[in-house]
Amino acid sequence: MKPLISPESAAKLIRLSLPSIATVKRPLSQCVGRILHQKIFSDRPFPPFDRSMMDGYALRIADISTGNIFTITTQAPAGIPEQPLNETHRSCAEIMTGAVVPANADCVVPYEETERVDEKTMRLLEPDQHTNGACIHKYASDRPAGEHLLQRGMQIGSREIAVAATCGHAELTVSEMPTIAIVSTGDELVEIHNLPESHQIRRSNDVMVEAALASCHLHTQQRQHLTDDALLSKQKLSQMIATNQIVLISGGISMGKKDFIPGVLNELGLKNHFHGIAQKPGKPMGYWTHTNCAVFTLPGNPLSTLTCLHHYVIPAIYLAMGQLKKKSAQSVQIDRNIRARNDFTIFLPVSVGDESQATPQPVQNSGDLVRILSSDGYIVVPPTMTKEYLAGTRFDYHRWH
Amino acid sequence: MKPLISPESAAKLIRLSLPSIATVKRPLSQCVGRILHQKIFSDRPFPPFDRSMMDGYALRIADISTGNIFTITTQAPAGIPEQPLNETHRSCAEIMTGAVVPANADCVVPYEETERVDEKTMRLLEPDQHTNGACIHKYASDRPAGEHLLQRGMQIGSREIAVAATCGHAELTVSEMPTIAIVSTGDELVEIHNLPESHQIRRSNDVMVEAALASCHLHTQQRQHLTDDALLSKQKLSQMIATNQIVLISGGISMGKKDFIPGVLNELGLKNHFHGIAQKPGKPMGYWTHTNCAVFTLPGNPLSTLTCLHHYVIPAIYLAMGQLKKKSAQSVQIDRNIRARNDFTIFLPVSVGDESQATPQPVQNSGDLVRILSSDGYIVVPPTMTKEYLAGTRFDYHRWH
Repeated sequence: MKPLISPESAAKLIRLSLPSIATVKRPLSQCVGRILHQKIFSDRPFPPFDRSMMDGYALRIADISTGNIFTITTQAPAGIPEQPLNETHRSCAEIMTGAVVPANADCVVPYEETERVDEKTMRLLEPDQHTNGACIHKYASDRPAGEHLLQRGMQIGSREIAVAATCGHAELTVSEMPTIAIVSTGDELVEIHNLPESHQIRRSNDVMVEAALASCHLHTQQRQHLTDDALLSKQKLSQMIATNQIVLISGGISMGKKDFIPGVLNELGLKNHFHGIAQKPGKPMGYWTHTNCAVFTLPGNPLSTLTCLHHYVIPAIYLAMGQLKKKSAQSVQIDRNIRARNDFTIFLPVSVGDESQATPQPVQNSGDLVRILSSDGYIVVPPTMTKEYLAGTRFDYHRWH
Repeated sequence: MKPLISPESAAKLIRLSLPSIATVKRPLSQCVGRILHQKIFSDRPFPPFDRSMMDGYALRIADISTGNIFTITTQAPAGIPEQPLNETHRSCAEIMTGAVVPANADCVVPYEETERVDEKTMRLLEPDQHTNGACIHKYASDRPAGEHLLQRGMQIGSREIAVAATCGHAELTVSEMPTIAIVSTGDELVEIHNLPESHQIRRSNDVMVEAALASCHLHTQQRQHLTDDALLSKQKLSQMIATNQIVLISGGISMGKKDFIPGVLNELGLKNHFHGIAQKPGKPMGYWTHTNCAVFTLPGNPLSTLTCLHHYVIPAIYLAMGQLKKKSAQSVQIDRNIRARNDFTIFLPVSVGDESQATPQPVQNSGDLVRILSSDGYIVVPPTMTKEYLAGTRFDYHRWH
């Protein structure tokens, strides 16, 4: 490893050297979770006509001064052009939500505030309560035509889909999904369906990483296990780096005699941006790039893998996809004093209660997978000379996927 | 509509009459977001052997009293059976993270705390600093064999996948994905790719609902638009109810003359559980069931549709899938006084800042789709006789998908 750098420096070095990911046109149903790569403008005013907000009757306010009984002369359902109101005093149109309000009406009175006298007549129950424009969603009152509604770089959710549809976009220009490979390493690991011998354990980091990515709508193209064989590993990694934009390697990157991954990456001509971060867990994390591929090396202990994946990898993938507007992290307050370090950032698992209070759920050993289940996410505890933070201090919080 | 009921009563009536959803076995890679329908036990102790937590040297603490130079007599890489330590005083094994610690060693000293003298010899830099058991992840110290690790009814994320894999489960018994149909209604709506006439708008609620479900890993089987034709609608709804477990209808359920959906559902023999909730927006929401199908009728204004979908439908689908452990809602504090009602619950859109402070982003008209973009989610504001809540009051908060 090289001299340790700060988590902030690591994130910045990643940000400065991400692979570029193409854009494509996709139908709306395939756009959820992707990053938008076009601007969306209102193609006409919102709403595009004086729209009735209620089911009831459209009428002229001025007519109320002459009496509270109105004649129903017109039907105005939604989906048909404007039906003008009869000019006779105290005429009204029976109107539905979403219908065009007649230009010569200035108020909609909901059914609830009327009484039907007979087929052709209704009575206002509270004739003094009606005001000009009531229950009319005025033409262009929300947005004018040509307004910039959706920005490039937004992550697309249900509301963005609805706005795009309203403006006539059945498909959108979005980021392509990056090609991602997950690599596990270590001779002690056996397949899930195997019965491990006493010195072996089953492989779980690779499927854990795949699942966290899937939670974020990211698809894994390839999973591959490497045994502790440098030559074979070099050959397989070379292939994976050539055919993927993101390669995530778990384990094999520390100081052990068989931790040959960094050497292999260097031999393959990749550029190393850092190797070693002043953080716990996850100190041995590293980052390499080659042409259009980013290689993240994640420490193999489950908590380290999970933390580095959440803290660096997933945000980096979305940045590479073009995400611009980044929501600030949620923050929580700790419910007790916690110990800190003066030299390392600590990523501390916590559970979060009703009142957004965080209870530390420390994992004694970053190999203890089960213990992580009792947390909801982790907080970022910066180094401090006092080596302690008091209850009530607020920290950035990130949920586990 | 019937007399209004409270949001809590509505949620309870839904809960009591959900369709049942089958369980299936699926490989781990298809389980993310689903509900677990089996218990997972540790099949052996965690860790299953005395596991080295560091790269370095395994040795006997007692030997340190005789000197700080040790002879490297053994190699202990990960993935091979235990390599006993030579019985000669001040022997040590060069060991890797994840390897079996020899039974006759009682301490692992990381490389960083040693100096290599030559190929066969190392020196302890701080011989007084080492303690019995240091850097050894003891056999069974995390969990005994046979312990219940994952409960039925959990939603499966990356950590659950990792635990299942570690315990030898390459596939899991999980909820089947429900079959979901989305129905839009209204003669004023045209297809996205059409140019609407001045009295028309484009359909967007159906794709918005589909997108929100997709964000939650729920797949829509069918989308269908119904024009305001009761007979044809009845026929199509009948088919959809027979072939889907969840049918979501947007619009056509209020008091308008063409709001015939409730009548059609009743004629089709569905049971109505409620129609009308004391809430804003979304008052006309209703719930019907038939055999193994749940029909949610959602008011057609975009904010109403979105709110009812998030507040009732998505939680109900996960309950139907067997979700048991429900995380309590996140809560936030409002940053200013807000008005409330004494009779209605208000679902108020808010944006949430760094410090988990919520800023109201009221939408003047629930037809104003674009305005919803400036919120991050909504808070649930219960009715209060004082018709006001003061800044700093805490409310349940739900994020938009």
